[in-house]
Amino acid sequence: MNPAAPTAAMVVIGDEILSGRTQDTNLNYVARFLATLGIDLKEARMVPDVAAEIVAAVNTLRVKHDYVFTTGGIGPTHDDITADAIANAFNVSIDYHPDALELIGARYKPGEFNEMRKRMARIPEGATLIRNSVSAAPGFQIENVFVMAGVPMIMRAMLEDIGPRLKRGRPVHTSTITAPVAEGRIAAALASIQDAYRSVAIGSYPFYREDGFGTQLVVRGRDAIEVAAAADVIEKALCAEGFKPTRENR
Amino acid sequence: MNPAAPTAAMVVIGDEILSGRTQDTNLNYVARFLATLGIDLKEARMVPDVAAEIVAAVNTLRVKHDYVFTTGGIGPTHDDITADAIANAFNVSIDYHPDALELIGARYKPGEFNEMRKRMARIPEGATLIRNSVSAAPGFQIENVFVMAGVPMIMRAMLEDIGPRLKRGRPVHTSTITAPVAEGRIAAALASIQDAYRSVAIGSYPFYREDGFGTQLVVRGRDAIEVAAAADVIEKALCAEGFKPTRENR
Repeated sequence: MNPAAPTAAMVVIGDEILSGRTQDTNLNYVARFLATLGIDLKEARMVPDVAAEIVAAVNTLRVKHDYVFTTGGIGPTHDDITADAIANAFNVSIDYHPDALELIGARYKPGEFNEMRKRMARIPEGATLIRNSVSAAPGFQIENVFVMAGVPMIMRAMLEDIGPRLKRGRPVHTSTITAPVAEGRIAAALASIQDAYRSVAIGSYPFYREDGFGTQLVVRGRDAIEVAAAADVIEKALCAEGFKPTRENR
Repeated sequence: MNPAAPTAAMVVIGDEILSGRTQDTNLNYVARFLATLGIDLKEARMVPDVAAEIVAAVNTLRVKHDYVFTTGGIGPTHDDITADAIANAFNVSIDYHPDALELIGARYKPGEFNEMRKRMARIPEGATLIRNSVSAAPGFQIENVFVMAGVPMIMRAMLEDIGPRLKRGRPVHTSTITAPVAEGRIAAALASIQDAYRSVAIGSYPFYREDGFGTQLVVRGRDAIEVAAAADVIEKALCAEGFKPTRENR
């Protein structure tokens, strides 16, 4: 689409994702959040709670993209190793951050702010904090890498703090056309429409429901006029074949 | 855990995942499917519908792991480029596979088996088909790479055909202890239990619900006795602190 749009990658950290214990929903949320800012999420990696794997993923992606977002591994327990891994990736030291200590400490009664809880205030050198309204423990930003919690409620609150720090791209316009048609029936027409409208990306997604099957055709692009024009042609092609499409523009 | 267990990686292919249009659920399903076979899913990547990205991910992962599973991009439309990308990754040719042509052709009335639908029968040289009970169009296996549909219903049916082809590892035993405790309160005890039971992995996952907060502690390992022993110690530590844990063993 627009090569000048900011790009991003995501690293989802946690054994619980790869073991199947937890269904990740953070990637989808981040993708939609970035889309509203005109930032393209280009790739994502799921890695286990293994420092070398976190370091490798972050170091590969942070030079390829404008932004990297990580989720998971910043709590108080022994399996929370993300902050140390990120310090390692950037080759900087890590220590208790005074503001983080104060933020977190304020949430506990005297005597409850134990050593393990203090671990959550360990922040790599040079990083700035990412606050959130749900939990006292902050995430942090170091250069173009944003380190967030894995708990979805907290991760979402952290994104609110991150949003204003990001440069925005032109928004992506989407037009979704849904019709009770098998995608193979209209595939040839779609291919030629895609050929004619090079500035948009046309995706075809079949669905199977109890009340029948169909296809959603999604036109995405930064030029609203081109998106609308391609969607019009698709809609007309479906009408000409006797299908009754519905359409949603965003 | 057990270094001798077979390992796997997953490549989730599709713009719809990275744009946020679609919430992926295939990774979670594959993770749980492999766990029942004792195969460790070690990492995953989400890539867009871009041939070079698919090729790079598959070629990186297929030499690192016993198995690679891909989902998405094997339908009839112009954005379905996975089969070609896989042929490219293995540097082999791609052509219509007679069995695939027959399977798919049998589903259509005369005249409906058009050129775009025939695309779904294009299979890289040397690959074997992955059949499924839901859709006629097959996936395929080439060496240690399994190429599956993105539609969850079809992907799940394909896994049934793949299962018998996989070598199995020792099953992973899991014991999950749930208690209404903040994870920071028990983090030090957990760290020392993890130190004492090196053959298991102990994960700590806080949750926040309307009826209160708590933590799930998940002990995973291939030695059932060690898993049970570590879970016992965690349970006793929680009881000693006055919490009433519940426990689920698998």
